[in-house]
Amino acid sequence: MNPSSQSAAALARVRVVLVHTTHPGNIGAAARAMWTMGLRQLVLVMPERFPHADATALATGAAEVLANARIATTLRDALAGCALAVGLSARARAFAGRVLPIRDAAEEVIGSAAEGDVALVFGTEMSGLSNAELAQCGIVATIPANPEYPSLNLAAAVQVAAYEVRIAAGAHRVWAAPRFRPATHDETEALYAHASRTLTALRFLNPAQPKRLLPRLRRLFGRAKLEREEVNILRGILARVDQFVDRDTER
Amino acid sequence: MNPSSQSAAALARVRVVLVHTTHPGNIGAAARAMWTMGLRQLVLVMPERFPHADATALATGAAEVLANARIATTLRDALAGCALAVGLSARARAFAGRVLPIRDAAEEVIGSAAEGDVALVFGTEMSGLSNAELAQCGIVATIPANPEYPSLNLAAAVQVAAYEVRIAAGAHRVWAAPRFRPATHDETEALYAHASRTLTALRFLNPAQPKRLLPRLRRLFGRAKLEREEVNILRGILARVDQFVDRDTER
Repeated sequence: MNPSSQSAAALARVRVVLVHTTHPGNIGAAARAMWTMGLRQLVLVMPERFPHADATALATGAAEVLANARIATTLRDALAGCALAVGLSARARAFAGRVLPIRDAAEEVIGSAAEGDVALVFGTEMSGLSNAELAQCGIVATIPANPEYPSLNLAAAVQVAAYEVRIAAGAHRVWAAPRFRPATHDETEALYAHASRTLTALRFLNPAQPKRLLPRLRRLFGRAKLEREEVNILRGILARVDQFVDRDTER
Repeated sequence: MNPSSQSAAALARVRVVLVHTTHPGNIGAAARAMWTMGLRQLVLVMPERFPHADATALATGAAEVLANARIATTLRDALAGCALAVGLSARARAFAGRVLPIRDAAEEVIGSAAEGDVALVFGTEMSGLSNAELAQCGIVATIPANPEYPSLNLAAAVQVAAYEVRIAAGAHRVWAAPRFRPATHDETEALYAHASRTLTALRFLNPAQPKRLLPRLRRLFGRAKLEREEVNILRGILARVDQFVDRDTER
């Protein structure tokens, strides 16, 4: 592949995920913003109104992006198969994993696009992503903004993020093969689900009062950027613990 | 002045000039885009309809930018007193001056803001700036875009340009994840020793044939740069597992 078709291939693996979008016009404007930067995979998690004439009107030349948009019922479903999910947030959060400015996050996006699909996740217009939604993202990206008024319009935020991803794709024309194979989003999510079950069985985690345990573990392992083999080792340890817990329960 | 007030002073000298804008909603959305990046000087050259309810609605929290917008009858008038004018254009032109990507143009904007006001000039929605209008600009800036569909919405182009100018001004104020206390060498070594005992008791690790298990775990947690509280959480989990293993052994 020549450099520009490599860039285009990387950009084609970037999904834009819009969660609970209120105004259909913003969906159309986001589709247009994506396509001006060469992104075409749009996933809508429970949009309030879609399809809608306002979305079509504001998409203008990006009608195809809109026509091919996928509707998902949960964020988990929207992120299925992704190597990396990057959540956009303007607000400061207590437990948010790695937090990067969008320019640095865009480098990670293009790096991970060598492994598979990568998601850029945007929350609802009024309040952004919830903490539970952000917890499903390996990286939180912020767009530097005026602290007096950091509230970018949704499509404007998509435009800036897509722009940075496009620039990063141009700068990364040769992808270095990673020495180890990174775990996919699905693999790490399955690890967290397994850990949650095992910790509950150990009575170390009380699902009724989970406190900050799982977010802390997500933050730790998110920072480490788990490899597939590491996920397998950790799940092997959990499975071994499960056997002891099961024997204890059977007694 | 401290660095951030210097940035704010430079951004305050950047004018956004919109020439012959057709849709008042775009004026409002542009005002919002500007103010999210700390720009507040808006100049409108012969807008088709202004003031207008659509402009007000889309400006949301940037009402003040809109209220202070200056109306000019000619581009020349709008640019009066500027040290530099940068015209945005997606299309290639037979242009005698300097053509730069917006990232490089933003550096020039901030450099010139030390001498006086600087203008970012945007043309009409359908056709952009005319050649005669571009001729009044010292630099033409382009936003890298999908060659198949380079047509950014006007306010989206303002958002990207204002974002690049803000970054160039050094106003990189993003919120950081809270800082935690890193674990000491002794604390992480004690964790590895504990893990080694527990994994041996689980018969997951055979000390006679340890293979690569412990080095792999060291590599993973070393990459994550453990915090003290994380070491405590992990040792808490190990201690809980130890209780189950002990009960199993006592049987």
